[in-house]
Amino acid sequence: MMQKLAERIEKTAPIVVGLDPMLSYIPEDVRAIGYAMCGKTQDGAAEAILMFNKAIIDAVADLVPAVKPQIAMYEQFGVPGVRAFYETVEYAHKKGLLVIGDVKRGDIGSTSAAYAAGHLGSVSIDGEITPGFNEDFATVNPYLGSDGVRPFLEVCKKEDKGIFILVKTSNPSSGEFQDQLVGGRPLYELVGEKVEEWGSEVMDGEYSNVGAVIGATYPEMGKRLREMMPHTFFLIPGYGAQGGKGEDLKAFFHEGGKGAIVNSSRGIIAAWQKDPYSALGPGRFDLAARRAVKDMREDLLSHVR
Amino acid sequence: MMQKLAERIEKTAPIVVGLDPMLSYIPEDVRAIGYAMCGKTQDGAAEAILMFNKAIIDAVADLVPAVKPQIAMYEQFGVPGVRAFYETVEYAHKKGLLVIGDVKRGDIGSTSAAYAAGHLGSVSIDGEITPGFNEDFATVNPYLGSDGVRPFLEVCKKEDKGIFILVKTSNPSSGEFQDQLVGGRPLYELVGEKVEEWGSEVMDGEYSNVGAVIGATYPEMGKRLREMMPHTFFLIPGYGAQGGKGEDLKAFFHEGGKGAIVNSSRGIIAAWQKDPYSALGPGRFDLAARRAVKDMREDLLSHVR
Repeated sequence: MMQKLAERIEKTAPIVVGLDPMLSYIPEDVRAIGYAMCGKTQDGAAEAILMFNKAIIDAVADLVPAVKPQIAMYEQFGVPGVRAFYETVEYAHKKGLLVIGDVKRGDIGSTSAAYAAGHLGSVSIDGEITPGFNEDFATVNPYLGSDGVRPFLEVCKKEDKGIFILVKTSNPSSGEFQDQLVGGRPLYELVGEKVEEWGSEVMDGEYSNVGAVIGATYPEMGKRLREMMPHTFFLIPGYGAQGGKGEDLKAFFHEGGKGAIVNSSRGIIAAWQKDPYSALGPGRFDLAARRAVKDMREDLLSHVR
Repeated sequence: MMQKLAERIEKTAPIVVGLDPMLSYIPEDVRAIGYAMCGKTQDGAAEAILMFNKAIIDAVADLVPAVKPQIAMYEQFGVPGVRAFYETVEYAHKKGLLVIGDVKRGDIGSTSAAYAAGHLGSVSIDGEITPGFNEDFATVNPYLGSDGVRPFLEVCKKEDKGIFILVKTSNPSSGEFQDQLVGGRPLYELVGEKVEEWGSEVMDGEYSNVGAVIGATYPEMGKRLREMMPHTFFLIPGYGAQGGKGEDLKAFFHEGGKGAIVNSSRGIIAAWQKDPYSALGPGRFDLAARRAVKDMREDLLSHVR
């Protein structure tokens, strides 16, 4: 699956659009349609989110290889929210996009196996093989160690899917535990080393199906990890709203802009709320997202390819 | 909320029943009813799970303070599975039980805020305050540091809810990262120290609303953490099927059997599959669970109270 992602990036751009639809990012008119259908309820919110996501997907599908829905933004609306997540994945697939489920799951072995089946694989319901949410990639939290990761590797092998393991996250306090020195070097490097090791079991072309999440906000660390992890594809959050800039990202990539993909969520899906895109008006939030992707593409490619 | 849990434990036992219903734990007859309603589909599986859970809850509601559904086991059945999770929480509440949502969420600040709202709090849908899954407690992964935890603390304060943060997990490879020495002591101790610190902001009686997950399988570490974390309530997985025994657990408790609660999942809900309970037959899986709780109570209390 990582090879498929790399090929799609080659044809488009190393950009994944984060579908993290806070209600405040959705224009009033779109929310109103959801509420007209189902009231100001979880169902109404879910309808509005799905409508919004579909318009964004339509607007960017030819420009990017993938979208990354953040499941927290859906779970907060209960079961209807989770249904909107599922339908978003389905719609993105229908439009030819790959889907990175940003779910940050991870648990003890048997439980991780259920997450892996639910998000990337399938379960047998007394013999009926039934896929779950059917993402192409999922993000995984490494705190529980190898036996929490291994079930994901098994599903990656069996179904040609991929995962991105949290190594160095983009948030301000990510260093609190991740940067702690272990035998003279930071914990995230140890995790990074394990990611390379796990990945060696699931190679898919130049890279393995086990990627790493490395925050755009820590370019020096990104550079070091890029050197340490030659076979690992990077998923880079933190561009734009969180402070990461294109010029900082060169070191996260291999020569020719390979080996990494950069996420932007708010900067694209809520582009309509800020200059220069706001001139288009809230009714053209989809066009604003499209322009924001093009501008991001230009910023990124001028530095990384 | 932690005080409420402590009071309920006082009246019953320091046991939480893990509702992790693998299909293989559910007697064939119960599964057949689900399939008769909706086929061998996610909906059919979800019906079977919910029926099974309700019978278990009915059988143990007067013996324990709480249940702990593991959301992975529901997510693997897609949206219908997640609905069964929601309905399990609701049913447990109706029967007077507290609910620990074993969700192990954790992300950057704004995303953790959505998880906290979705699992413990509520969201505003253009002014309509709407609770999400409405658990009383949720488990939280600390890998992202303080700003991933803080949104949960805010909800704990505002809504009198609680969390249990992963400190030292019960699985075999938990030491891979958690035991790494940081300044001469293991990372999990550093996390434990932060848990005490976060908890100091959200005290609720003798303990704080910020608990810790400490695996029964590591009694020496449990003892040390018990000393280090005087205001932290412990949630202890790993009893029974994973190898933890009552005699090992004394050190996790304060004097008089206070300050901790022990989870058992398979050992209770699938008790009907093993001796001596299997003599009851699969039709009395609920009675088998009840007897298993009583036996666990006897084992635990003889050592910890």
